[in-house]
Amino acid sequence: MINRDQLLSFIREDAPYGDVTSEAVIGNESCKATICTRQKGVIAGLEEAGALCSEYHITVRFGLNDGACAEPGALLLSLTGRALDILLVERTLLNIIGRMSGIATLTRRLVEKVSRVNPGCRIACTRKTAPGLRGLDKKAVLIGGGDPHRFSLSDGILIKDNHLALVPLEEAILRARKYSSYRTIEIEVEDDDRAVRAAVAGADIILLDNMSPDGIARTLQELNRCGLRDRVVVEISGGITESNIAHYAGLGADVISLGILTHSVRNLDVSLEVIR
Amino acid sequence: MINRDQLLSFIREDAPYGDVTSEAVIGNESCKATICTRQKGVIAGLEEAGALCSEYHITVRFGLNDGACAEPGALLLSLTGRALDILLVERTLLNIIGRMSGIATLTRRLVEKVSRVNPGCRIACTRKTAPGLRGLDKKAVLIGGGDPHRFSLSDGILIKDNHLALVPLEEAILRARKYSSYRTIEIEVEDDDRAVRAAVAGADIILLDNMSPDGIARTLQELNRCGLRDRVVVEISGGITESNIAHYAGLGADVISLGILTHSVRNLDVSLEVIR
Amino acid sequence: MINRDQLLSFIREDAPYGDVTSEAVIGNESCKATICTRQKGVIAGLEEAGALCSEYHITVRFGLNDGACAEPGALLLSLTGRALDILLVERTLLNIIGRMSGIATLTRRLVEKVSRVNPGCRIACTRKTAPGLRGLDKKAVLIGGGDPHRFSLSDGILIKDNHLALVPLEEAILRARKYSSYRTIEIEVEDDDRAVRAAVAGADIILLDNMSPDGIARTLQELNRCGLRDRVVVEISGGITESNIAHYAGLGADVISLGILTHSVRNLDVSLEVIR
Amino acid sequence: MINRDQLLSFIREDAPYGDVTSEAVIGNESCKATICTRQKGVIAGLEEAGALCSEYHITVRFGLNDGACAEPGALLLSLTGRALDILLVERTLLNIIGRMSGIATLTRRLVEKVSRVNPGCRIACTRKTAPGLRGLDKKAVLIGGGDPHRFSLSDGILIKDNHLALVPLEEAILRARKYSSYRTIEIEVEDDDRAVRAAVAGADIILLDNMSPDGIARTLQELNRCGLRDRVVVEISGGITESNIAHYAGLGADVISLGILTHSVRNLDVSLEVIR
Amino acid sequence: MINRDQLLSFIREDAPYGDVTSEAVIGNESCKATICTRQKGVIAGLEEAGALCSEYHITVRFGLNDGACAEPGALLLSLTGRALDILLVERTLLNIIGRMSGIATLTRRLVEKVSRVNPGCRIACTRKTAPGLRGLDKKAVLIGGGDPHRFSLSDGILIKDNHLALVPLEEAILRARKYSSYRTIEIEVEDDDRAVRAAVAGADIILLDNMSPDGIARTLQELNRCGLRDRVVVEISGGITESNIAHYAGLGADVISLGILTHSVRNLDVSLEVIR
Amino acid sequence: MINRDQLLSFIREDAPYGDVTSEAVIGNESCKATICTRQKGVIAGLEEAGALCSEYHITVRFGLNDGACAEPGALLLSLTGRALDILLVERTLLNIIGRMSGIATLTRRLVEKVSRVNPGCRIACTRKTAPGLRGLDKKAVLIGGGDPHRFSLSDGILIKDNHLALVPLEEAILRARKYSSYRTIEIEVEDDDRAVRAAVAGADIILLDNMSPDGIARTLQELNRCGLRDRVVVEISGGITESNIAHYAGLGADVISLGILTHSVRNLDVSLEVIR
Repeated sequence: MINRDQLLSFIREDAPYGDVTSEAVIGNESCKATICTRQKGVIAGLEEAGALCSEYHITVRFGLNDGACAEPGALLLSLTGRALDILLVERTLLNIIGRMSGIATLTRRLVEKVSRVNPGCRIACTRKTAPGLRGLDKKAVLIGGGDPHRFSLSDGILIKDNHLALVPLEEAILRARKYSSYRTIEIEVEDDDRAVRAAVAGADIILLDNMSPDGIARTLQELNRCGLRDRVVVEISGGITESNIAHYAGLGADVISLGILTHSVRNLDVSLEVIR
Repeated sequence: MINRDQLLSFIREDAPYGDVTSEAVIGNESCKATICTRQKGVIAGLEEAGALCSEYHITVRFGLNDGACAEPGALLLSLTGRALDILLVERTLLNIIGRMSGIATLTRRLVEKVSRVNPGCRIACTRKTAPGLRGLDKKAVLIGGGDPHRFSLSDGILIKDNHLALVPLEEAILRARKYSSYRTIEIEVEDDDRAVRAAVAGADIILLDNMSPDGIARTLQELNRCGLRDRVVVEISGGITESNIAHYAGLGADVISLGILTHSVRNLDVSLEVIR
Repeated sequence: MINRDQLLSFIREDAPYGDVTSEAVIGNESCKATICTRQKGVIAGLEEAGALCSEYHITVRFGLNDGACAEPGALLLSLTGRALDILLVERTLLNIIGRMSGIATLTRRLVEKVSRVNPGCRIACTRKTAPGLRGLDKKAVLIGGGDPHRFSLSDGILIKDNHLALVPLEEAILRARKYSSYRTIEIEVEDDDRAVRAAVAGADIILLDNMSPDGIARTLQELNRCGLRDRVVVEISGGITESNIAHYAGLGADVISLGILTHSVRNLDVSLEVIR
Repeated sequence: MINRDQLLSFIREDAPYGDVTSEAVIGNESCKATICTRQKGVIAGLEEAGALCSEYHITVRFGLNDGACAEPGALLLSLTGRALDILLVERTLLNIIGRMSGIATLTRRLVEKVSRVNPGCRIACTRKTAPGLRGLDKKAVLIGGGDPHRFSLSDGILIKDNHLALVPLEEAILRARKYSSYRTIEIEVEDDDRAVRAAVAGADIILLDNMSPDGIARTLQELNRCGLRDRVVVEISGGITESNIAHYAGLGADVISLGILTHSVRNLDVSLEVIR
Repeated sequence: MINRDQLLSFIREDAPYGDVTSEAVIGNESCKATICTRQKGVIAGLEEAGALCSEYHITVRFGLNDGACAEPGALLLSLTGRALDILLVERTLLNIIGRMSGIATLTRRLVEKVSRVNPGCRIACTRKTAPGLRGLDKKAVLIGGGDPHRFSLSDGILIKDNHLALVPLEEAILRARKYSSYRTIEIEVEDDDRAVRAAVAGADIILLDNMSPDGIARTLQELNRCGLRDRVVVEISGGITESNIAHYAGLGADVISLGILTHSVRNLDVSLEVIR
Repeated sequence: MINRDQLLSFIREDAPYGDVTSEAVIGNESCKATICTRQKGVIAGLEEAGALCSEYHITVRFGLNDGACAEPGALLLSLTGRALDILLVERTLLNIIGRMSGIATLTRRLVEKVSRVNPGCRIACTRKTAPGLRGLDKKAVLIGGGDPHRFSLSDGILIKDNHLALVPLEEAILRARKYSSYRTIEIEVEDDDRAVRAAVAGADIILLDNMSPDGIARTLQELNRCGLRDRVVVEISGGITESNIAHYAGLGADVISLGILTHSVRNLDVSLEVIR
């Protein structure tokens, strides 16, 4: 779902009083332009770019679609319109495509790494997104093949250590179940004992947070031993990087979640060139 | 300047229908909480965090101020308020502080690297920010000791290659000068010849874009030779990384601008812990 | 969570150019006022009313709290402030409290009716709310003791007949499962055969829509017979009214959902009286 | 007048992060859909529904127009577009049409009841609308044949008991007249004595609030006797229901106003069906 | 009624990225400042200025109140707060006070001129306000002693020549009366014949637009002769200036309306001085 | 750059609940209309008017373009659309065109007056605009041939007397230079001594504020004598009116700035006529 209001707010941010350079130096002429990538990557943000262009009467032809894996130099979009309009939206288009493609590219790379070791294990992002960009960041993860996890505090129950500082584990799960019949209940634990207690108490998802590979393995065994493994989804998180993810993936969890997918984005390098 | 509307919009993004977990599992009790950094870095975003807390009647005590260099484990903020409110704003606070501190930290590191080689040379960021976060990203650069460059298309004239595809260089500068007596005129060039032509035509700032160190050195000499060096600010950009920036800094430009400061942020790792 | 922006927008709706009557006929004097209910009911909206008053520097004392069951004549709020401000917010306060209390009152009544027959059976509302009032309507249901069900299309998967017109049942559940490990998957069916197929395919919640009591009973038996009853939550909906709900409750479903809770609200009659 | 911003805000309310079900289970295909009513009623909200569809590139064919009296099963709208878009707006369309048609239907029924007894007597609504929906609720009353009364506190002077607790009746009318030459002045009274005093003092409209039929009749006679009946519009309100309205209509007032038209709406039952 | 959202939007307009000068050159110190007028005039906008200051934690002491007639040099407001905050709001405060006081001053001058000739004749403004400033402009007219006329197209019926190009006069009045029992009906005419027809048809207010003094006088006589003068309010408009208004006032109309009050404002000269 | 959100907000301001007159008295018919000027002037606001019309499906034909000098009676725009829509936007269109053309007309007149005396001297406006209309007011000045000066506090450094009450002149310029390499530094002075000090300290622009013609002349000589004249732009402001501007223009400054261009606008008289 495209949020046009948000896209237009990006333009107002980049040009609260218009684009003084273009207004000063160029006239009312039309031109063409191309947006290409300079790096290999999974492309995202083209749907948003297209929607934004159409608000400015810029005609768009798609060279690729969101989700495509592009080689360096690949044409993403061809634009035709007034030069004033194309230059007005240029940086915003590139910032959107660059960030979303950066997220999608890393997601896809980790998804592939993990699936070679454990095809049933998913990659998920977290709520550690750039503030204001939750929707775009999550969509980019989806395009990269990842799981969007919770969008917000409103759409799933996740009992964390900070809750458990205030209420006992079993009581927390009981209250959560009473709150709604429709929400999955996830709970964050840091050892095997609490993992088992959470599963017994009826949690749907167990998040093993900041545990060592050994601790994770032991916890999974323990859940198995108690006949609880099939009743819960097991997510692991914390200390997992691109270099050690394959090792973690081999431990047998259902989901690996990583803040890095969205809180430490490396934009894909894309650029726009005006063609007279 | 704090934009409270934007801060509140971040909360609505993270909780369009409230925080279902906290509402389900905890009561109306008060608590304390601390926000600490797990990594060494230059801290930014505390002013925003404080302003957001005060919207939710959370009392804040500052352990450090924006701009401070924090060691791992350092206390940034102490909070007192309703647990429901503290947990509602937790992730947003951390996302703001994490991103802004990440930007400030890298900026400070590059500023120091450059000033050891060339104390007169500044580090600047670009408009390659996360869409919607221009103001926060630029402020973090300032806190890190960098130059914010243009905030938007409205506040300075920068004639780029895409303009020059449509209008000749001298004509562009002439029109820009005619547009306003108040704006600096910057122009992007890719060789020494055009740098000299731009200076002769009256540009205030010359951006040497994507030029090799040799090319940059030759251009600076050429400007010197023509007696134009003192009349212009020289900015260099493109292909400059943390590992080669010291070399570039030695070439004698006035400003080095880097998209990486804001388009490929690595959040500083900060966390919030509830204390019963 | 209080959305102050929304509350203030209600005032702008009721007074785009101020309150011409009060500005014309009364001066800058202070006064007291009371808000009382004229009907028996479960009170909701007081937290919102209090927050709105504080935006206008009106001091509020709570006679009751949200969730209380009030007798006719009960004092809900005492207000002290400028008469101009109290009269400006009067109608908005009453409209909020009246609507939310109307919803909470009906919810509580149905919850009690059902729990007498089947204490394990919950009452839930739907997305058939007044447009723009989703959050307030859902909160009122919670206050009345009901289940808020999905807040929006973003927070849970519910495969309905209109989806099944486009994709086969098993395929739909498979795709939903693949989309996310975190969301419950609910599916709407209209006969026992599809209910069993849905449970076998892995749905978490089965919505028996517009089925007769007999059909519902048969479906529950069939799920039992197949050993699937414990693996799914069963929700029933359609044709259920205040007069037949006890009968439906006795059939053994887990949740009864009713659009009537929010789409056909009867406001609780509350009024404000100025006391000189 | 259509408020597109408000219509789009309804979609963002129902899908802050998109429609996860449709995005998960269906593809990019097109489809047709029909919106029909399951109940007899006066239809309203189709203009809004059409405007909202056009924002999502959904082609609309109108089966009926606003104000039409529809039989059960009647086709209101035919839609053609992407299934993803139609399902995204489905519930919002139905909530708008359902609520507005519910209001229009009751209004029309009361208008007809009253006009059989007293063709000169009008039905009006009040400001007891759902907060945020004032414009739509008032428009639905107009479509049903009712009088919209004041839209807001800004567009007419209505001196109520709470004003009269602070300023004497004659003084209030004097001040109101002095405030503006353009506004009608209405005043709420509860007995015949004050009704006469208000008319003598120059009020344009007298609202007989919460008076018994006898009291109303006596007041109208008294106004007649004093030669004031023709100089004022007489509105009656309070305690009037669908079952006793004919009796009240026979008393000879000019307008009967009812909060029930908008504060206790019963949605008309409408539904959308996708046709592959 | 103060619209804080609008006031804050003025600050965002004047400082989308903060106040770079103050942030660059001054520190976090506190200071005092005074706002004085350099010209004699009727002061307006102080309530708005005070509300805006309080959003920035600036303490305000009022030297005068809205509506006061100030001599040159008079102190309007004393401010105490952070210099950064005072300088941030300075220009916006002055623009609000300057414009609103300019409007109030001219209004008061014309009101006094007219009342010397015809104490029963009022001065009214029109909808020819600066776009976006309707509320502030109308409030300033009220403070100056004028009549605010319609705030908007929503709050009163005014049938103008452009309507009468599409529908006959009597039919238009009939339809207007049928639309609502609560709205005054005003109609614009340009000769005595139509004025009489309008009054006969039941208009409440007759606007004699762009008529000569003779034409106005003749029309008033004609209305008198037909016994209609007391049944209508007569407004005159068009071609009336500060120099001829006394003459027009003597003709006996009830209201003189002037676009000039709000469409051609001359700001009152006010300034802010920081006191260390 | 057109801000459609702002244009639509103007309509909501003028019709929060629609146009009751047109809705009451006219039907759904189409019509034509013309917008003409009754006065000679430089036309501005047509681009905005066209954009607003297109939001309401009104077809527009341009009789003139922004910047044209129109004679009385000149056709500016021809409109075709639903009468309801044309009458809804009428007043807003006229208010926009009237104000912007008023600004452009005065600007052009002063520009021409000045250029006859001193072709190198520019006319600039200030930040003394109507609050909320900064962008439109500045655009109108540009259309009239003026310099827009700073749009806001964010886009250029201007050190004023209120800053200099808090920090010494040289220190202020030093800090400003350190803040950014990209911003011009302007400083306001009131005598020749400080003008020279400012130029020596490196200011780019010297604003001679409220100085007599003699003082200005002496300051320019002094700057010349010190060899600083070519290094700075000299702006003069304060006490300059349409009648004395030619004299000031002859003194040799580079820019004359006037608040009057935007704070005391006289709307150009434009009107809309419906043609059946």
